[in-house]
Amino acid sequence: MNTTHTTPKIETIKEAQERIAGYAHRTPVLTSKQVNEKTGSEIFFKCENFQKVGAFKFRGASNAIFSLSEEEATNGVATHSSGNHAQAVALAAKLRGIPAYVVMPENAPKVKVKAVKNYGAEVTFCESTLEARETTLEKVVKRTGATFIHPYDDARIIAGQGTCAMELLEDHPDLDIIIAPVGGGGLLSGTAIAAKAIKPNIQVIGAEPANANDAYQSFKEGKLIPVQNPNTIADGLRTSLGKLPFSIIIEYVDDIVTVPEESIVEAMRYVWERLNMIIEASCAVPVAAVFDGKVDVKGKKVGIIITGGNVDLENLPW
Amino acid sequence: MNTTHTTPKIETIKEAQERIAGYAHRTPVLTSKQVNEKTGSEIFFKCENFQKVGAFKFRGASNAIFSLSEEEATNGVATHSSGNHAQAVALAAKLRGIPAYVVMPENAPKVKVKAVKNYGAEVTFCESTLEARETTLEKVVKRTGATFIHPYDDARIIAGQGTCAMELLEDHPDLDIIIAPVGGGGLLSGTAIAAKAIKPNIQVIGAEPANANDAYQSFKEGKLIPVQNPNTIADGLRTSLGKLPFSIIIEYVDDIVTVPEESIVEAMRYVWERLNMIIEASCAVPVAAVFDGKVDVKGKKVGIIITGGNVDLENLPW
Repeated sequence: MNTTHTTPKIETIKEAQERIAGYAHRTPVLTSKQVNEKTGSEIFFKCENFQKVGAFKFRGASNAIFSLSEEEATNGVATHSSGNHAQAVALAAKLRGIPAYVVMPENAPKVKVKAVKNYGAEVTFCESTLEARETTLEKVVKRTGATFIHPYDDARIIAGQGTCAMELLEDHPDLDIIIAPVGGGGLLSGTAIAAKAIKPNIQVIGAEPANANDAYQSFKEGKLIPVQNPNTIADGLRTSLGKLPFSIIIEYVDDIVTVPEESIVEAMRYVWERLNMIIEASCAVPVAAVFDGKVDVKGKKVGIIITGGNVDLENLPW
Repeated sequence: MNTTHTTPKIETIKEAQERIAGYAHRTPVLTSKQVNEKTGSEIFFKCENFQKVGAFKFRGASNAIFSLSEEEATNGVATHSSGNHAQAVALAAKLRGIPAYVVMPENAPKVKVKAVKNYGAEVTFCESTLEARETTLEKVVKRTGATFIHPYDDARIIAGQGTCAMELLEDHPDLDIIIAPVGGGGLLSGTAIAAKAIKPNIQVIGAEPANANDAYQSFKEGKLIPVQNPNTIADGLRTSLGKLPFSIIIEYVDDIVTVPEESIVEAMRYVWERLNMIIEASCAVPVAAVFDGKVDVKGKKVGIIITGGNVDLENLPW
């Protein structure tokens, strides 16, 4: 496995920013008077739902894929994912002009499978268990010689995701707090490295569904506690925290807070209705944390990373 | 009636831009690789769905209300509207600290009535006919001494709406075409004045539902032909073209094109799914015009004004 396992430095994130600049969007930061009045703070939404493939995942995937050596890249890249990372890898590989092999569970939403195929990736289906995904991936890698791009337990991915907070702080250097959702931890760890290097006294907080609170538990206990098939609408956050992200989060993150399912759905709908943008349930988690008073934001300037907007319109939670 | 009836000049639009700068958002411009590939052009979406009150209408309303003399403003402002203009007037009046009186049809969506009341406006209900709206408004104006703010047949409104194209051309001076939807014509006329003054060889095109094609007919015939209760999902465009907008459109606009209802719904859904933003049916009209090949955009840089995003999530057209 060609993952890299060292905590990226701020310089690595700056390099990532330069590397992906021609490919990724510099996403807009939106504000809402209504949200500010409701929360008694100033909230700045960094809108990765308008990123390529509709999610921040493209930052990490494109940084990882464009930083491969010619030799590593020659046989293409492979990953397993039912979600945004699959699309991100497929598009980044297409842009680099190398093959992409994606292992997807056979029950993955058709629309996501279609999107991955549209980017030119070869899809291999497997049973819907982590074990099946890993063994199928192994076979694909053996057959093709492709380089595995892990969705979060990889320094290149983490550095790529860190570019998002870097942009946000370039646009709004006076933020007091940044909140990001935490699933595998790639985004939160990259955010923490970038934010603390740029502004050491900033608070970096992770937000997690109470129903999938492995990062919260791991953070409080100081050791990795994985989660088994958690039941949360925030499908992007069902995955367990990765090793490398955990080691970074323990060092750089100030707190992790959790929110119940009802609050996630309510915050999701609020953003749809008041901000007129489509966000996934996963990005409603930090919004819910603020609305529920889980983070003390009164009088503060707060950045929230809106991670993605890939939602099945036929299957809305209201 | 305190409307103004002279075609605004580009200087007036520049003044409007300065006047509303502290109140209105400078909205982002989004692009989509998928849209560009689908159309063989470069499309720049000017996202007024992220404007205050969720629609470009706030530009015109705030310009009109902040340009009132102290004397004109002292008894507040009044309007009749079931839609975004009502909210825009209510918020702008609140920001200026003067009363707002809004006449709304008794069948107006509850969510819109609530929004208008939330901004502190006094709502008077009437029957759902243009006549009832106008006579009720007249009574309200007589009772209160408020200044009537017409939704589009007013130079201050037109100048305010023109600030949108001005911003778009500041961000992307190399546009070949700008397309805006046309209902009452305030946006299209303001867009045309701004765009042609800034870049005389730019094409300015209006897009209209085929089912409410009064602007198209008026443009082709060279005289105002009103429409009666047209049946289109694009509820923001059901209104007939206003006099002053018509006189400007005849002079400055290059063409008006129409699209069928199916294309509007399809384009609306496409934008929701691929751009992850919530747009009203009205703003899907120019998008549909491009997708249907009604405007020749091949190889061109095209600005499309996304006018608003206030949609009832319980009542989607799919």
